[in-house]
Amino acid sequence: MGRKVAIIGAKMTKFGNLIDKTLMDLLVEPSESLIEEFKVERSSITSVYVSNLLGEISSRQTAVATALADYIGLKNVVAERIENGPASGASAIRYAFMEISSGNSNMVLVAGAEKMKTAPTDVVTDLVSMMSHPEVEYPSGATMPSLGALFARLYMQKYDVKPEHLAMVAVKNHSNAMKNPFAQFKKEVTLEQLIGPGSESFNPYVAEPLRLYDMSPITDGGAALLLADLETALSYTKKPVILEGIGESTDALALQDRDDPTELKAVRLSAEKAYRMSGIKPEEINVAEVHDAFTVLEIAISEEIGFFKKGEGKLALQNGVTKINGEKPINTSGGLKARGHPLGATGLAQATEITWQLQGLADQRQVKDASIGFTVNMGGFGSNAVSIVYRRY
Amino acid sequence: MGRKVAIIGAKMTKFGNLIDKTLMDLLVEPSESLIEEFKVERSSITSVYVSNLLGEISSRQTAVATALADYIGLKNVVAERIENGPASGASAIRYAFMEISSGNSNMVLVAGAEKMKTAPTDVVTDLVSMMSHPEVEYPSGATMPSLGALFARLYMQKYDVKPEHLAMVAVKNHSNAMKNPFAQFKKEVTLEQLIGPGSESFNPYVAEPLRLYDMSPITDGGAALLLADLETALSYTKKPVILEGIGESTDALALQDRDDPTELKAVRLSAEKAYRMSGIKPEEINVAEVHDAFTVLEIAISEEIGFFKKGEGKLALQNGVTKINGEKPINTSGGLKARGHPLGATGLAQATEITWQLQGLADQRQVKDASIGFTVNMGGFGSNAVSIVYRRY
Repeated sequence: MGRKVAIIGAKMTKFGNLIDKTLMDLLVEPSESLIEEFKVERSSITSVYVSNLLGEISSRQTAVATALADYIGLKNVVAERIENGPASGASAIRYAFMEISSGNSNMVLVAGAEKMKTAPTDVVTDLVSMMSHPEVEYPSGATMPSLGALFARLYMQKYDVKPEHLAMVAVKNHSNAMKNPFAQFKKEVTLEQLIGPGSESFNPYVAEPLRLYDMSPITDGGAALLLADLETALSYTKKPVILEGIGESTDALALQDRDDPTELKAVRLSAEKAYRMSGIKPEEINVAEVHDAFTVLEIAISEEIGFFKKGEGKLALQNGVTKINGEKPINTSGGLKARGHPLGATGLAQATEITWQLQGLADQRQVKDASIGFTVNMGGFGSNAVSIVYRRY
Repeated sequence: MGRKVAIIGAKMTKFGNLIDKTLMDLLVEPSESLIEEFKVERSSITSVYVSNLLGEISSRQTAVATALADYIGLKNVVAERIENGPASGASAIRYAFMEISSGNSNMVLVAGAEKMKTAPTDVVTDLVSMMSHPEVEYPSGATMPSLGALFARLYMQKYDVKPEHLAMVAVKNHSNAMKNPFAQFKKEVTLEQLIGPGSESFNPYVAEPLRLYDMSPITDGGAALLLADLETALSYTKKPVILEGIGESTDALALQDRDDPTELKAVRLSAEKAYRMSGIKPEEINVAEVHDAFTVLEIAISEEIGFFKKGEGKLALQNGVTKINGEKPINTSGGLKARGHPLGATGLAQATEITWQLQGLADQRQVKDASIGFTVNMGGFGSNAVSIVYRRY
């Protein structure tokens, strides 16, 4: 089933409020940084895939992949933009994977970016909501936080998940982000601050039961990966990271149309596809980045991807299993919650963290002897998901 | 190099002012029409690629491929949107091609659409221009017609192309569109009307030397293709159309940065890649759809793709070689000029016309014994192009 595909290296910009950077800056900087570090002849790169959602609106740009190829001096290449909601980054990796495994290309650059801080929060909340159902959700005023709240309420009821469990995700991920120089938030938070008496002013409700610190933030940022067939990759690095499996799945678009609204079926099915392709089981994974757009999702996803049984994700969390030094570290980067969530860049930032973990480049966040990693990137509120299994060479 | 990939069938909506249709309607209608005609089990389709440029702005939608999968009842599939300026349609075909040839999928639906008639013309002209260079073109007020005019002036001077040659393209393509029930324009035009005395009121200058009838129109429309590996395709149709070669190439983004601004290097290089992959020479092609966003482009492209020598495209045109009954029919559908140019749907409409020609379904436009076809779809003003070579089974 084709050649082995490997990541040579991964780079990202700092995430946060990057008001002085353009969309092109956020794509060019990590791309150029990869080309320079690995001393890549530009003529070796034959395709460029860009993941981005809102370039038309944020930057009045279409055909942004062609623009990136031009800006970084690539000639006569394939250049296309992939958009799959907030899973655009992982979808772009999937495209590169197929291109290399099938022998169409030996080296592909994948870059993703989003400019979100230029508009007021309510405008951005509206733009982000455009991924929901165009008839039964978006026009009714449904936003991602409101859908997240509906999910949270049902899921928490069914599995007896308490507000403190959600807060534990935020505490862990903010703590991890303290160790990540690229993260948006550099601020420890405590359970007391988040849910203690009087916490409503520090951590107000946004859409009950979700509070401010249950939400991933609005973020500017960019990230890029350089991928190649394994043989080519080995001529650039001694530490390639092999993409062993990629799976994607849709689910019903509207939350109300799902068989069970407390399930994240797209996440589960995409993970199953990735496990099957890789021959790797969830038990073997050493480190994972999952799509914690809301704190409750980290718990639910940790179950859907087979790390824990249904209803036991909260226990793993409260027992420290998902901490950096736990048995099953999740979101060592700080996750969407604290590293930040620039939509088109998020899937690539997840892959970047896992690449760094498997290459031993994660500094204070390094998971000891990490050799197998996993990411899951959600597009829409559970309507699409892309899972990837990575292995250290 | 992988399995043979074939088009089972192609469908499109009527192109034009479809103010009552939503973006989803324009994607769903041709998709459902394919599923019904070929009696496809929905579970057989494992991936859906959507080509679309302006959904965020026209319809406030992202993640539109996931929405299409949901609307037409596909479950647990891959669903992604591809955007490569007005070449998005051909790029989406390229993605499907790779997925099938590499064995990742046996059947893929590709659908493309654009809603452009909801905004005033000047607003749409601005939106379309977002594919130009984000620093040296777009912010200076460059629009596609103004870039087209710069190109036309230089190209016409260099190769002694006269205004009547441009008008001949419009006359031919409007005449072809009269025979195409799906075309936007149903109106014959004459050389006299376009360039005769007093023609300025019927055919005013937009950006000299380009006049109104040198421009492709603003269009709503959708189109879809069903693709499969050849073996699977043969279980649905006796007339599959094989994709023998696909090539894509970028050129400098800004017109001013090109080595020679009268060349369309991306078109030439993409065609060379497609010819190489297919083993088919330009002399063997029986029918072609090329990206006549401006009349002058049809002439220039007919040279870059190797149909005619440089400077001789105008002669072929004036001698009737490119008419439906000529030796080298070009734009039998009416082309972008008269069939219409709904950006995200255009590449699929080109592929639809060639599919119909090679399946013998082109009615009054049928090119006799057409067995090998060609399309070239431009993204940006010559900054990206995707060429495809098709062969009748």
